[in-house]
Amino acid sequence: MPATTPQRWQNLILAVRKLPGVGPKMAERIALYLMRSEETDNILRAVREAREHLHRCTLCGAYTEEDPCLRCGDPGRERNLLCVVEEVADLDALERSGAFHGLYHLLGGVLSPLDGVGPRQLRIEPLIDRLKASDPRIDEVILATNPTVEGEATATYLTQLIHPLGKKITRLAYGLPSGLALEYADELTLSRAYEGRKEV
Amino acid sequence: MPATTPQRWQNLILAVRKLPGVGPKMAERIALYLMRSEETDNILRAVREAREHLHRCTLCGAYTEEDPCLRCGDPGRERNLLCVVEEVADLDALERSGAFHGLYHLLGGVLSPLDGVGPRQLRIEPLIDRLKASDPRIDEVILATNPTVEGEATATYLTQLIHPLGKKITRLAYGLPSGLALEYADELTLSRAYEGRKEV
Repeated sequence: MPATTPQRWQNLILAVRKLPGVGPKMAERIALYLMRSEETDNILRAVREAREHLHRCTLCGAYTEEDPCLRCGDPGRERNLLCVVEEVADLDALERSGAFHGLYHLLGGVLSPLDGVGPRQLRIEPLIDRLKASDPRIDEVILATNPTVEGEATATYLTQLIHPLGKKITRLAYGLPSGLALEYADELTLSRAYEGRKEV
Repeated sequence: MPATTPQRWQNLILAVRKLPGVGPKMAERIALYLMRSEETDNILRAVREAREHLHRCTLCGAYTEEDPCLRCGDPGRERNLLCVVEEVADLDALERSGAFHGLYHLLGGVLSPLDGVGPRQLRIEPLIDRLKASDPRIDEVILATNPTVEGEATATYLTQLIHPLGKKITRLAYGLPSGLALEYADELTLSRAYEGRKEV
């Protein structure tokens, strides 16, 4: 930053750069937008209100204003199914799909020793407690961590922990994403789609 | 957004999506960061303070805490050179290069009729006033708008306005960017580098 730049402009740029995925060019664009836009006050208010009123549901770990959250407290959901996901975005994606109507459990991430994330940094103990005591009706645990190296390792780790509890453990199917032509699918996706083939 | 999502979480995501260049996935990542990070209060404070204390310099249009800004008020700068740029980022880039020590004038954008940006939306009138009256010592105007269609059109428009004032008008040189091998340069860059060739 040139020395002639005012201190508070530098502070603004540096603050915006802290947001995940925001590089130097984008930080300048966002800073300029925040200076000029009439929306800025609304944005700041939304962040403040979210931090004030949202907290993690003690059961599933999703952000909520009530505790337990609307989903965990909903008697209409299939209370024998528990879907374990990494974070809020995964839960939202599953909810949008409309395919799943059971309960959720958010881990808050995946095992990643290089980033200092071990089992104690994730919501794994509450998961085991929940399966053992608080939600005894759960008979199937769906491990919906992402199909990445860390996601797979986390699922394997959880399988070892949950197996002794006598619950059915499942994993989301691998295969071709809808709309992807075979010629554009990568080798791993294609070989998994082949392994998971079904009789028609 | 699924109906089970808390209202304030939806508000947060929608607020973050308003930032330029932030798509749906990135908005969820940023929202999660803002909820979890200890930096959030510092970020909000930096935005609030910048908006409270920074304003546009009445001469050059750059953000400043003083008026005129430190650059416009600096007697050590070459006060016969005026460099016209689009926005703060361009000014910062030129300052970092260390090549220019004159005065600046920010347009606040470029002419772009399709986006509703005409001459009246830019700081063109203050530029002409400045050349006519307030800064009579300026004898060269460097039109440093970007080498885009809109930047070129804006430079051409400004040339017509400034020409009658009898000032020297220049434009930054086109050519190969430093470090770019010829085989990777696009056709337009290469043909401009050829046209602008210099005797050694």
